[in-house]
Amino acid sequence: MTAQNGFSHLNAEGEARMVDVGAKPVQRRLAVAEGRLVASAETITALREQALPKGDVLAVARIAGIQAAKQTSSLIPLCHPLPLNKVAIEFSVEDTAIGIRCEARTDGKTGVEMEALTGVSVAALTLYDMMKAVDKNMRIEGIRVTNKEKQ
Amino acid sequence: MTAQNGFSHLNAEGEARMVDVGAKPVQRRLAVAEGRLVASAETITALREQALPKGDVLAVARIAGIQAAKQTSSLIPLCHPLPLNKVAIEFSVEDTAIGIRCEARTDGKTGVEMEALTGVSVAALTLYDMMKAVDKNMRIEGIRVTNKEKQ
Amino acid sequence: MTAQNGFSHLNAEGEARMVDVGAKPVQRRLAVAEGRLVASAETITALREQALPKGDVLAVARIAGIQAAKQTSSLIPLCHPLPLNKVAIEFSVEDTAIGIRCEARTDGKTGVEMEALTGVSVAALTLYDMMKAVDKNMRIEGIRVTNKEKQ
Amino acid sequence: MTAQNGFSHLNAEGEARMVDVGAKPVQRRLAVAEGRLVASAETITALREQALPKGDVLAVARIAGIQAAKQTSSLIPLCHPLPLNKVAIEFSVEDTAIGIRCEARTDGKTGVEMEALTGVSVAALTLYDMMKAVDKNMRIEGIRVTNKEKQ
Amino acid sequence: MTAQNGFSHLNAEGEARMVDVGAKPVQRRLAVAEGRLVASAETITALREQALPKGDVLAVARIAGIQAAKQTSSLIPLCHPLPLNKVAIEFSVEDTAIGIRCEARTDGKTGVEMEALTGVSVAALTLYDMMKAVDKNMRIEGIRVTNKEKQ
Amino acid sequence: MTAQNGFSHLNAEGEARMVDVGAKPVQRRLAVAEGRLVASAETITALREQALPKGDVLAVARIAGIQAAKQTSSLIPLCHPLPLNKVAIEFSVEDTAIGIRCEARTDGKTGVEMEALTGVSVAALTLYDMMKAVDKNMRIEGIRVTNKEKQ
Repeated sequence: MTAQNGFSHLNAEGEARMVDVGAKPVQRRLAVAEGRLVASAETITALREQALPKGDVLAVARIAGIQAAKQTSSLIPLCHPLPLNKVAIEFSVEDTAIGIRCEARTDGKTGVEMEALTGVSVAALTLYDMMKAVDKNMRIEGIRVTNKEKQ
Repeated sequence: MTAQNGFSHLNAEGEARMVDVGAKPVQRRLAVAEGRLVASAETITALREQALPKGDVLAVARIAGIQAAKQTSSLIPLCHPLPLNKVAIEFSVEDTAIGIRCEARTDGKTGVEMEALTGVSVAALTLYDMMKAVDKNMRIEGIRVTNKEKQ
Repeated sequence: MTAQNGFSHLNAEGEARMVDVGAKPVQRRLAVAEGRLVASAETITALREQALPKGDVLAVARIAGIQAAKQTSSLIPLCHPLPLNKVAIEFSVEDTAIGIRCEARTDGKTGVEMEALTGVSVAALTLYDMMKAVDKNMRIEGIRVTNKEKQ
Repeated sequence: MTAQNGFSHLNAEGEARMVDVGAKPVQRRLAVAEGRLVASAETITALREQALPKGDVLAVARIAGIQAAKQTSSLIPLCHPLPLNKVAIEFSVEDTAIGIRCEARTDGKTGVEMEALTGVSVAALTLYDMMKAVDKNMRIEGIRVTNKEKQ
Repeated sequence: MTAQNGFSHLNAEGEARMVDVGAKPVQRRLAVAEGRLVASAETITALREQALPKGDVLAVARIAGIQAAKQTSSLIPLCHPLPLNKVAIEFSVEDTAIGIRCEARTDGKTGVEMEALTGVSVAALTLYDMMKAVDKNMRIEGIRVTNKEKQ
Repeated sequence: MTAQNGFSHLNAEGEARMVDVGAKPVQRRLAVAEGRLVASAETITALREQALPKGDVLAVARIAGIQAAKQTSSLIPLCHPLPLNKVAIEFSVEDTAIGIRCEARTDGKTGVEMEALTGVSVAALTLYDMMKAVDKNMRIEGIRVTNKEKQ
């Protein structure tokens, strides 16, 4: 089964498949993804003044992102299960957005960018959920891979 | 426990909580969310010419999005489990993006915008996964709620 | 979106969809499914003499089937989540097979035959797993719905 | 704890156990399982004419089978978690049945026949679900392992 | 199938079963469970001084407990799935223990004490996990139901 | 990011993190945890006389504990996924309690005490669920690690 040109997840008939990673070596791998939840300045001010000082908001989103990153191969049908060595999620509260960064690491046969992207996405959704009573016009923007390495 | 101002998922101590929806009536509810995976024109052309004519690409992403929408309360920590009546995901292939639209419906005590947003997010991640061998610079953009109704 | 003739899970474009059950009434519903794991007479004799008298074999398969029936909407992409009132699994040890029967009940908007079929299938797979060291030629046969009712 | 004769998943007291695979070497392993969903000739004709030409039916069942194969150790209580290198599902539409074939590969300490059998079973159940509005008398038959290798 | 005396989850043959709750009315139900993680005074002092002032420890355990409570019917084989209206987890840091209290609410056909007990148990395990590098001799004690009501 | 003193799951800012185990060697590891479900003498007598002789009670709890041990990294947010080689659960019926012991084994980069503790906890909860109709005053006590080794 030859891949459909560059689309490695499709065979020559266009059918979905998990790529066979059996022949690939186990390597130490790292990926970083970023994204942001865009909100109004008023929402971010309220968050800074009322919710962040003593609240669980960022911790809840961090945990949701870490747990989702570990579930990536259940969520994304053609992803391989990978033994994650580390998942870390960091936030930066900007004037009209919350920036989200997720780093994932493994010793595996395939890269961890989907894990990092999934961690960012679910952390963003969790922030959205906790802030949606305050702001009906939030958007999740700019989810992308910013670094990918292997040794 | 009074909410921390508008942040209904935080109590007066700033601790995370599930809002008690016990006193809310069961209502027919609908939410629609949208987003898009932005790729290069070359990637979209390759997708149109090589992958879409007979391939499973959109079907795989659709199924992943539907399944994720049904798992929303497992992914988003403070979401309530809801009996979904319907989840539908549609795609529109544009020149430099794939648009994604998810509609979720329930008869429940709380809205389904998180289910619709989760469906869009995971469908976008799944497209990203299948196209990432072709294009290393894709981004997921503009995930937002575009309609929310109850009867 | 009109169904593709009788294929209610496909819209007019042939795309997969969850049927909208919003307008359907909640009714008491019951489904029964059956199937069997076919093995050699020697295997069944060994099972009867060595494993069944004091062993956990049938209990393990029963629990696996019940748990799977409760996960049906996660396993079968277009199934609706249903609040199951009951799942029961029974076995009948025959000369060259183990018969499996699963009954599922709900008060829901759609039927529970997929839950009953899933219960039978996973109970059969679990028996297979526990017996595969003894018999390499087992087969799972005749999984079908034998009763479906609503009130 | 000696196994109950050949029943390796039972200890000398007949209690269920996961076999200790700690001393087994990691080997490249492959298993293939097959089965089929038996339907009427009319159903298969309708499927061929109405659903298959442009529809998602086989893609949906393929994805469901792949995802289930990755969840095998959650579904089958005494199975070990395995890092799957590949899962592939193929269908052959016959006159009165849809044949299903699942291949699973790992580098692991134990075989992957349960993963292959689970992939076939859930793909069959998913086809059943999508076709049940058209045909009330379908049956899932002949689920068995057809090849098992290790290097 | 008559219950084995009071053991409602066993039929007359001693086989496990889910109790049929079909005939039971939907009622508003509440359960509270408590438990505690016992640690040395030095550990609790370190926690108070180093981890609690600005740290995520309690938030992480709270979220883990809430998520587990929502997964109760997947974890406890004979539990019915219930639509939870609310789950709340509170901690009290004592001199040689962390007290944990979980309240669960539903409008359902059966009680929520298992959800409350599961929430306490997984919150306790999560605290244990985060503190185990500091204290090797912690114990989880006194997990029990302290209140159960229905209207 | 330096750990917050001994609290290895918190970084210098007190934020939750998964410890990076990338540099740790894969080692054969074992952990044993114990706990008990305390009930009245009457309950235990009824259990011995009515439920245990032919019933599934202990098998159900054993399977629930094994399955939960395999799900530990989904339940405990900062746990790493580990490829378990074995999970075994044993019970000892005492006069006013059921003792529970769980042994977990892996070839992994980090220990398996959380897996063993999770196995004990969920087995205890499952026993509680099956016995709660008979005894309203049970308690889960003394969940702790009793052995931990690596080679």
